Amino acid sequence: MVQQEKPTIAVLGGTGNEGSGLALRWAQAGYRVIIGSRNADKAARVCAELNDVLGRTALTWQDNLTAAKAADIIVLTVPYAAARATADEVRSSLDGKILIDATVPLVPPKVARVQLPEGGSAVAQMQAHLGADVRVVAAFQNVSAHHLRDLAHEVECDVLVCGDDIDARDTVIGLARAIGLRAYHAGPICNAAAAEALTSVLIAINSRYKIPGAGIRITGIEADCHAHEQ
Amino acid sequence: MVQQEKPTIAVLGGTGNEGSGLALRWAQAGYRVIIGSRNADKAARVCAELNDVLGRTALTWQDNLTAAKAADIIVLTVPYAAARATADEVRSSLDGKILIDATVPLVPPKVARVQLPEGGSAVAQMQAHLGADVRVVAAFQNVSAHHLRDLAHEVECDVLVCGDDIDARDTVIGLARAIGLRAYHAGPICNAAAAEALTSVLIAINSRYKIPGAGIRITGIEADCHAHEQ
Repeated sequence: MVQQEKPTIAVLGGTGNEGSGLALRWAQAGYRVIIGSRNADKAARVCAELNDVLGRTALTWQDNLTAAKAADIIVLTVPYAAARATADEVRSSLDGKILIDATVPLVPPKVARVQLPEGGSAVAQMQAHLGADVRVVAAFQNVSAHHLRDLAHEVECDVLVCGDDIDARDTVIGLARAIGLRAYHAGPICNAAAAEALTSVLIAINSRYKIPGAGIRITGIEADCHAHEQ
Repeated sequence: MVQQEKPTIAVLGGTGNEGSGLALRWAQAGYRVIIGSRNADKAARVCAELNDVLGRTALTWQDNLTAAKAADIIVLTVPYAAARATADEVRSSLDGKILIDATVPLVPPKVARVQLPEGGSAVAQMQAHLGADVRVVAAFQNVSAHHLRDLAHEVECDVLVCGDDIDARDTVIGLARAIGLRAYHAGPICNAAAAEALTSVLIAINSRYKIPGAGIRITGIEADCHAHEQ
């Protein structure tokens, strides 16, 4: 049996809290991770910080398009307002690849209030915008950046994985498990509305109960139950 | 200190799976519970079944309006398609009371697909429809009817409680705790969209992983953390 090489992952918006947390965890798990950013100074600084945490030069950085071109899997973690423009910027590199979209349609300043776009899900809109040649998978919207960045902290949050392509969902479930997260098939891309809306609810819970990072667990299911069954 | 009497609860749609499960649990916890239904035969039969499970005559039944009039708190558990008509039927009895709305906008046959109404939440629409004199609280959308009906089964599902009136939310959190459920303040009524969408995701998970009743737990929070703090 040939051992498959791990895919290269580009994290666009990888200087932000969520993106840098995911980048750090995947780099720790042995993936080649490229941080994509429009801001070279910030990218260099965050990259150095993360490599420092890991104690080795595991992460590199590039502009978004160069990062996306070099990667097998592209992860979008920019703010909602920048998601469409960032996807368009790297569009030429996306065909046939998986785009993991962690976008949540938060509308500041009322980020603890569910404000879904017309039609429901921001990520479903992205899939419609990019067309069927790009396999968009919604995931990681509910995982606390605060906890991702702290490698000593087990991230107690399950990942709802939505997408119209089941193989792509399986790949993303594998990437979540590689960094210690339970992840579940949660239906077609339109179901991402649930995870998007839930993010505002978790922000509301954080605020009310004065905690840093509420998350969710799916109950009634064994953690490893049929995870790769189709 | 005067001991407050427990409120009387009317469960409209109490012959259905979710409604009868909640009615059973509250009756078991010592509340006076009235099942409201349009169908007298079915109401009598379900009521007898539930009393049989409890081993005493704890539940009664009435038509919806009589049940709502006699109750302090009204719980709406009819299917989405019947929710508006049922609320209108009992509208004259609702002023100043709490209406717990467990409605999920499922659109058969694709119930595992998130299909939120325009504007996001079905329950937020109900609050707008009924006006501010009725305190609508969204809750219990994610709790498995299958597990509620089995009194030997601990219900492993937290309740997201959304509403624009914080005191009303507190009351509902108390009612959830009375039947052994953890419940949390989850923001204003529009945030019910998260729990509504999540129901379709849980149905998708049940189907894919061949389990009877997936649920959610909120993580990162102590179960009793500041539950009644405002």
